[in-house]
Amino acid sequence: MKNKRSSSSPKQRATAHITLLTDFGTSDYFVGALKGVILSVNTAVTIVDITHEIPPQDIATAAFTLLASYQSFPVGTIHVVVVDPGVGSSRRAIAASAGGQFFVGPDNGLFSYVFEREPPEKIVQLTNETYFRHTVSNTFHGRDVFAPVAAALSTGARLDSFGPEVSDSVKLESLTPTRLNTSALKGKIIHIDHFGNCVTNFDKQALKGIESPSLRLKRRRIDEIRHSYNEAKRNEDVFAIWGSAGFLEISANQRSAAALLKLKRGDKVILEMDKE
Amino acid sequence: MKNKRSSSSPKQRATAHITLLTDFGTSDYFVGALKGVILSVNTAVTIVDITHEIPPQDIATAAFTLLASYQSFPVGTIHVVVVDPGVGSSRRAIAASAGGQFFVGPDNGLFSYVFEREPPEKIVQLTNETYFRHTVSNTFHGRDVFAPVAAALSTGARLDSFGPEVSDSVKLESLTPTRLNTSALKGKIIHIDHFGNCVTNFDKQALKGIESPSLRLKRRRIDEIRHSYNEAKRNEDVFAIWGSAGFLEISANQRSAAALLKLKRGDKVILEMDKE
Amino acid sequence: MKNKRSSSSPKQRATAHITLLTDFGTSDYFVGALKGVILSVNTAVTIVDITHEIPPQDIATAAFTLLASYQSFPVGTIHVVVVDPGVGSSRRAIAASAGGQFFVGPDNGLFSYVFEREPPEKIVQLTNETYFRHTVSNTFHGRDVFAPVAAALSTGARLDSFGPEVSDSVKLESLTPTRLNTSALKGKIIHIDHFGNCVTNFDKQALKGIESPSLRLKRRRIDEIRHSYNEAKRNEDVFAIWGSAGFLEISANQRSAAALLKLKRGDKVILEMDKE
Repeated sequence: MKNKRSSSSPKQRATAHITLLTDFGTSDYFVGALKGVILSVNTAVTIVDITHEIPPQDIATAAFTLLASYQSFPVGTIHVVVVDPGVGSSRRAIAASAGGQFFVGPDNGLFSYVFEREPPEKIVQLTNETYFRHTVSNTFHGRDVFAPVAAALSTGARLDSFGPEVSDSVKLESLTPTRLNTSALKGKIIHIDHFGNCVTNFDKQALKGIESPSLRLKRRRIDEIRHSYNEAKRNEDVFAIWGSAGFLEISANQRSAAALLKLKRGDKVILEMDKE
Repeated sequence: MKNKRSSSSPKQRATAHITLLTDFGTSDYFVGALKGVILSVNTAVTIVDITHEIPPQDIATAAFTLLASYQSFPVGTIHVVVVDPGVGSSRRAIAASAGGQFFVGPDNGLFSYVFEREPPEKIVQLTNETYFRHTVSNTFHGRDVFAPVAAALSTGARLDSFGPEVSDSVKLESLTPTRLNTSALKGKIIHIDHFGNCVTNFDKQALKGIESPSLRLKRRRIDEIRHSYNEAKRNEDVFAIWGSAGFLEISANQRSAAALLKLKRGDKVILEMDKE
Repeated sequence: MKNKRSSSSPKQRATAHITLLTDFGTSDYFVGALKGVILSVNTAVTIVDITHEIPPQDIATAAFTLLASYQSFPVGTIHVVVVDPGVGSSRRAIAASAGGQFFVGPDNGLFSYVFEREPPEKIVQLTNETYFRHTVSNTFHGRDVFAPVAAALSTGARLDSFGPEVSDSVKLESLTPTRLNTSALKGKIIHIDHFGNCVTNFDKQALKGIESPSLRLKRRRIDEIRHSYNEAKRNEDVFAIWGSAGFLEISANQRSAAALLKLKRGDKVILEMDKE
């Protein structure tokens, strides 16, 4: 109704999927407004919330959350990610295709972890205002730019139609651990989840060929990788385990490892390799 | 299954949209129960959560949240709003059409901000029990009355079929600022959002013809309206900005203005006009 | 995409409904990942969140929440419940049909309150890995086992196809109050909701034939059952009322009874019968 395209030609594609990942919280009208704008353009699209509880302006957590979830979605899914401290400034708005899926949001690094893994086929800057809401605010591009562009993509609009190609999209510092010396890698806690599991940036690629790694934390050394939570001997045991996002995690059985070890995001983790 | 109409004739209209706006929280079964009842009547309707985190029994915050979001939805959307301190008492249950959309909930002022802007075409009292759940509890009309009525609306039922017309629906105190004298308007903080932005009740209509307004708060005077968050000179700067709901907001760049200025909902805001 | 079945034959059944009830919280990628996996198998299924805020590993609260909500959903609804402290251990994964609906999750008692009321027609153990995600983690069976199995059910797969029948599924302690003597029953607070209402395990069946029951709590005796919140004389009044889940609740008008009486889940409630 509010969107030019939608009023002229509302569409229906029930099998298109749009995900939302923001720092909007769930107590305001923000998320509802995004969904209303999307449904005004494509009345039958399926909208899925990843989360709206990214800490305000925390681009890295949003980038990790997207990295951990995009592969669960069908080919062609459109991911709208809005953590946008630069809204209303000259930061670019972009849309991209990578790994068979689409990504829409501000160009501030939100997609760079995914793009490290899935080299983007095309990234365009969103400049064609015909796809925007009739009036674009300076404070809410989620509703006024990203939602209607995602909805247009869901009805079959091509990336080219939104604006010129971009070759230098903003990148966050890489998630790849750095080599300290011949026997150690330096990594960090990149996320602490709802259960207190501490996700590191050591993935299977980083540990390739390493037989018996040890993790050195501020207050603790962890020598074993367990295969399940229940394998731990006692409840208070802290251990490493391959987590569901593909990274090594520091966990405790039915307890919060973050609380037990007083770990927080960004804390250093040294991985020592077994010298054979 | 539980609803008389649904058991006789479940319907499918995938392009109908029902929004939910409540104070139910999201930790109980309440929201799920509403959705189940709706889907029992119309198996393919799209249900959108606006929010369920309205503070318990806070009718004015719900009314503001509805006002800020309804325009983002397609024509014909059905908005179910349940903040219902009078459930089980003699307060009326109503359904209405206004501005091309539908509104369903208790008659306690929840819709009055919208109705100030969109004069209702028709308001009816919900008295026809054939549309209700087979047993109506005294504590959960969201599930037993409002959800099945909204679902019936989504399958094409007419407002007239629910009960008699109502001409005196309950109104909250108007959002229009009051005039203090020839050079000042008195308003207030009507909402504080997830980011700490403080929404006032000064809209563009109230500021028509005023060139350089100043806002006087408890602890601060604000002389400038900025065009974007990033225009602020330093992070600690507090400024006014036109917010996405159409009202003047008091904001800070990547900070909570509410925390910086210790503002809370209901606080007085005096708008002083420039004397030319 | 990630699921063998989905990549070979994505399905569409827009009128199938899957509900989700977990302790995952809503700040991580967990819930989004479940939904992505489901939509990869059945692109047009409707997914409804009951809640994701079950306290971590709290099986009894999840079992109550399911009990209070399943009857609101249409025949054929598939309920996925994942509170899974034993993930990766030898605890069984199950799917069942009962009361015209389907239930999928770990075999740890989550479904036992529903099964007390609706004797299950069939329970099977999930052993057929063709229905699982291509790689099954040891930490996230919600995504890797339960979501794809539920999605397969929604496209018409039969319970038999998932694995062998189970006759000894895990049961929680029954919700039926125990008889203390000829004039008293012993029950407890089984849930405290968002508004502070304290749900007991006294249902209409337990009170059959009892005319004027009294409730004895730690600090208070309650002699009357009110019919609505507003019937209470003063705001601070605490009273009993039949709640929307079918159990007697201890409530206060627009106040939290739990806060007023310092009640918590598990607290004992003695029901004294009127001696006629």
